[in-house]
Amino acid sequence: MTEKITIIVFSGDLDKALAAFNLAIGAAAMEMKVTMFFTFWGLNVIGKDKKVSKAKGMMRKMLNLVNRGGAKRLPLSRLNMGGLGGSMMKKLMKDSKIPSLEEMIRMAHEMGVEFIACTTSMGMMGILREDLIPEVARLAGVATYLGEAGEGKINLFI
Amino acid sequence: MTEKITIIVFSGDLDKALAAFNLAIGAAAMEMKVTMFFTFWGLNVIGKDKKVSKAKGMMRKMLNLVNRGGAKRLPLSRLNMGGLGGSMMKKLMKDSKIPSLEEMIRMAHEMGVEFIACTTSMGMMGILREDLIPEVARLAGVATYLGEAGEGKINLFI
Amino acid sequence: MTEKITIIVFSGDLDKALAAFNLAIGAAAMEMKVTMFFTFWGLNVIGKDKKVSKAKGMMRKMLNLVNRGGAKRLPLSRLNMGGLGGSMMKKLMKDSKIPSLEEMIRMAHEMGVEFIACTTSMGMMGILREDLIPEVARLAGVATYLGEAGEGKINLFI
Repeated sequence: MTEKITIIVFSGDLDKALAAFNLAIGAAAMEMKVTMFFTFWGLNVIGKDKKVSKAKGMMRKMLNLVNRGGAKRLPLSRLNMGGLGGSMMKKLMKDSKIPSLEEMIRMAHEMGVEFIACTTSMGMMGILREDLIPEVARLAGVATYLGEAGEGKINLFI
Repeated sequence: MTEKITIIVFSGDLDKALAAFNLAIGAAAMEMKVTMFFTFWGLNVIGKDKKVSKAKGMMRKMLNLVNRGGAKRLPLSRLNMGGLGGSMMKKLMKDSKIPSLEEMIRMAHEMGVEFIACTTSMGMMGILREDLIPEVARLAGVATYLGEAGEGKINLFI
Repeated sequence: MTEKITIIVFSGDLDKALAAFNLAIGAAAMEMKVTMFFTFWGLNVIGKDKKVSKAKGMMRKMLNLVNRGGAKRLPLSRLNMGGLGGSMMKKLMKDSKIPSLEEMIRMAHEMGVEFIACTTSMGMMGILREDLIPEVARLAGVATYLGEAGEGKINLFI
């Protein structure tokens, strides 16, 4: 029987997203079934690199401005130093021949990792389907996550 | 057989507390047995909204001043902007008809979610039973958590 | 059959490291098999308290300067206040007769908790074996973690 792993990606930090995708790709390579559930700031990880959001309401527009998504744009959880830390990290990854987060997302998708975006967070933050990368397979709520995790051998919250 | 989920609430951030309670309520609605174990900053989530702590010692008094509990008062883990981010988030939740954290705590309690407060953290931080909301069912240590999690199908650290 | 618990220590914050070791020691005391997998900032927790890193490359040298390891030196995830929060926390722990993080690391090791350091993060951040405390049992990658967690009853990401 195939083993299953689920990962809630709550964080929108580059370092935590890297950890999540490293785990996801590793598990997929071991032929485990992998489900990633993106919620709250984690929606930034699977956000398109775009400028204008069509979200309704002044406050959502503002939020989507300060909190623009896209895997390229994520801050570090620590030593971010206005983005400098993140740039350094990307340079170090390249030096070590570690793929970038964007490449990891593509790889994970190609290896069959399923990306689910949390509808509750999307509604609250004014994030639309079109704001997310096409690799996202499904939009769903907490019940879907719990169903998946109930079958998971490993369930992590990142 | 009823499935069981345990959640360690370590964080005292509003956004993470919302995620924890969203999961807890969702699981309770699916008739899972849910245990939430509040430790460290997470004790703020189940702290009473009160002004004076009777904690002994200068340093604990100071800590309880800077680190006042109460679900109303929690900061965001990101974009807090001196509380502005938190207020915006609450407004967005209201707009989306998502219950407030205080309402979620009440709902979870009514649905049978068990709240356990970590005695080690309470002792260290000078938090007394009377500083916590009455919905807290038990005070217990790490052994109790491990016993519960050993029976859990899903165990998360938030 | 012995139950097993795995903990990914991603965070390099004092408070989260304390939570991780509290769980690890508690589980070891209940005769569970415990594996701790230190990755990213978590490598700081098991870093030696030393001044000079022999890491190659300007950027890694800089990173190792800003991000110096050692259990003594970790910041708090919250209310760190330039280290003051951490000092206060240590004082409160001493008052409550809670062992220090350094003591907890030693205790956990003596109780048979296995420390694994993540090779991918080490390579990227320029951390060498000699930069880590001798209690670290193994250097390994994500596949090793997944193998361990696949047998775990409780798997946490901290």
